[in-house]
Amino acid sequence: MSNSFTKVVFSTKFSQNLRFMSSVFRGHQLVYSEFGEPARVVQKQECTTGAPGNNDVVIKMIAAPINPADINTIQGKYPVKPTFPAVAGNEGVGEIVSVGPDISDIKVGDRVITLKNGLGTWRTHLTINRDNVLKVPKKLGLVEAATLSVNPCTAFRMLKDFEKLKPGDTVIQNGANSACGQSIIQICRAWGLRTVNVVRNRDNLDELVAFLKGLGATHILTEDSLRTTKVFLNGDLSKPKLALNCVGGQSALEILRHLDNNGTMVTYGGMSREPVTVPTSALIFKDVKIRGFWLTRWSKENADSIDRYEMFEELISMMTNNELQGPAYQMVDFVNFKEALLNTMTIKGMAGKKYILNFEKA
Amino acid sequence: MSNSFTKVVFSTKFSQNLRFMSSVFRGHQLVYSEFGEPARVVQKQECTTGAPGNNDVVIKMIAAPINPADINTIQGKYPVKPTFPAVAGNEGVGEIVSVGPDISDIKVGDRVITLKNGLGTWRTHLTINRDNVLKVPKKLGLVEAATLSVNPCTAFRMLKDFEKLKPGDTVIQNGANSACGQSIIQICRAWGLRTVNVVRNRDNLDELVAFLKGLGATHILTEDSLRTTKVFLNGDLSKPKLALNCVGGQSALEILRHLDNNGTMVTYGGMSREPVTVPTSALIFKDVKIRGFWLTRWSKENADSIDRYEMFEELISMMTNNELQGPAYQMVDFVNFKEALLNTMTIKGMAGKKYILNFEKA
Repeated sequence: MSNSFTKVVFSTKFSQNLRFMSSVFRGHQLVYSEFGEPARVVQKQECTTGAPGNNDVVIKMIAAPINPADINTIQGKYPVKPTFPAVAGNEGVGEIVSVGPDISDIKVGDRVITLKNGLGTWRTHLTINRDNVLKVPKKLGLVEAATLSVNPCTAFRMLKDFEKLKPGDTVIQNGANSACGQSIIQICRAWGLRTVNVVRNRDNLDELVAFLKGLGATHILTEDSLRTTKVFLNGDLSKPKLALNCVGGQSALEILRHLDNNGTMVTYGGMSREPVTVPTSALIFKDVKIRGFWLTRWSKENADSIDRYEMFEELISMMTNNELQGPAYQMVDFVNFKEALLNTMTIKGMAGKKYILNFEKA
Repeated sequence: MSNSFTKVVFSTKFSQNLRFMSSVFRGHQLVYSEFGEPARVVQKQECTTGAPGNNDVVIKMIAAPINPADINTIQGKYPVKPTFPAVAGNEGVGEIVSVGPDISDIKVGDRVITLKNGLGTWRTHLTINRDNVLKVPKKLGLVEAATLSVNPCTAFRMLKDFEKLKPGDTVIQNGANSACGQSIIQICRAWGLRTVNVVRNRDNLDELVAFLKGLGATHILTEDSLRTTKVFLNGDLSKPKLALNCVGGQSALEILRHLDNNGTMVTYGGMSREPVTVPTSALIFKDVKIRGFWLTRWSKENADSIDRYEMFEELISMMTNNELQGPAYQMVDFVNFKEALLNTMTIKGMAGKKYILNFEKA
């Protein structure tokens, strides 16, 4: 371990006051104090985590992914702006090392994930309110746990909340090899939905096709082949009731063209940086509905809802049953965070492998 | 009258057979047998209307408007394609001159409007099923009756079916001087809604502003002034929950920019012939909903619904109470239909005055 920290084990013998004063965790965090290019503005610094408040827990972080939205937040391009200095990172998994005196349902040693945007998960120790963590089973894979709260939840909600889909129905998506796209394919497979998955053409296309087929993709098409595809013509595949768009521009228009009458296209990303263009006739005569989805808002509006906890339960169940695996990933030691930030910002990183910070080597 | 026709008055003394054979109405109709420019392909021809079937009525048409959708249909640009030869025209008002033997709730002399697309209202006599007519009070103005079934209904449904609006809420629309735009302004006034009305700049802008103000428009802005307007800044006007778009392109984007979070933009026309462009961020972070509305579909899906008859009742009540007047119009003698078709196709016709065929001089 390149940096040491001290873990003071909670002892009920101590007085509450003494216990608070003595529960100090030393570690590191990734901080930025201005918006800009992540590899430049994000700095690693030492930090000390005090004892938790009455309803707080202290998490020793194990792993935290680098998501595109994290990069956008650091660049100042995200609508949620942090207060400086800010610790980066918005999801992750860890182990409880201390709990506040009012907490009875979570104990030291529990495995938990963070539930809220903006908590700053890129640090060795995180003190947060108990309401912002979810206890997860230890048999849940570390990568699945670390990446559960963003992409699988986004996929789940988009498949649930816009169209009433039934087994046999078709979903079309672009950016199908993104982390969220991979979740969409697998959840659709588990629910008996068929998927038409659009990806950009590339050198190693066969490899990508094999990977997505392995996840359960029904059809995989490049943006070019989508224009001339006959998959909807042989009567085997119904027209999609739902289109999921994380690209925008021409790619969004092409998947929209295949949408069934009265169907919905949900936009959750804009990797091409081009807006969504909708032909007037599709709106009027086909009655297509154009919507957007942002998990941060949904989670805020449904923080304590049954829907939210049922979603986590179902996703964790899928994951432990091997129906839903985490994204293609690469673990990166915490000390090498700059390399991971740079890689995430390349197209390869955004659309392919997910970089996950590993805090064991902090 | 340039052309005469014979009206055989129904007599109960005749046998049913004899009565059917003798009930013949001679007149004229506007027919086309190929798609193309309306003034070229639409021809006036003589026709004979026989006695009505058991559940049919014969209407002697009084007035029928020329709507943009009629032009598009004749051009072959509308998704609903007629069987040739086809009589043009999709709405109008007339008087019942004969009813089928099974009809008890409508009688000769009643004033009626047609309720369905594609009936071919540009003719002196029209035989249709009783279900396709609505009896209207004679005190209802002829222009209001002739134009009731398309634009006021479109306005009504768009204001009712997408957002729950309450008095004081704001609606923004472009193409505000269109026939539908005029209905929107007046229905909003009647319901206590405030309107921001966008029109193109023009020579006689003051005149148009005065006209729309007279209908009850809260604010009238040109497309240019919308970009710099401060009407939303002084706290007097709430951000629009609903935007109504009949233009598309840049104009749609500009009204979309003012839409409140979670609001809906409904597209019902595309006068600019440019698609609707939606920034990805508006979909994801503002949760705006982009929808379309087509009255033809709504009417088909709600043909016998209570909603539909309540709508007609409310609109007719508004009209007879002088809360809702028909569009700016010009009556055109039936014989001069070519001139009216040409004028409707000019920008002036599309966005300004409604041409209404008058069958008195057929």
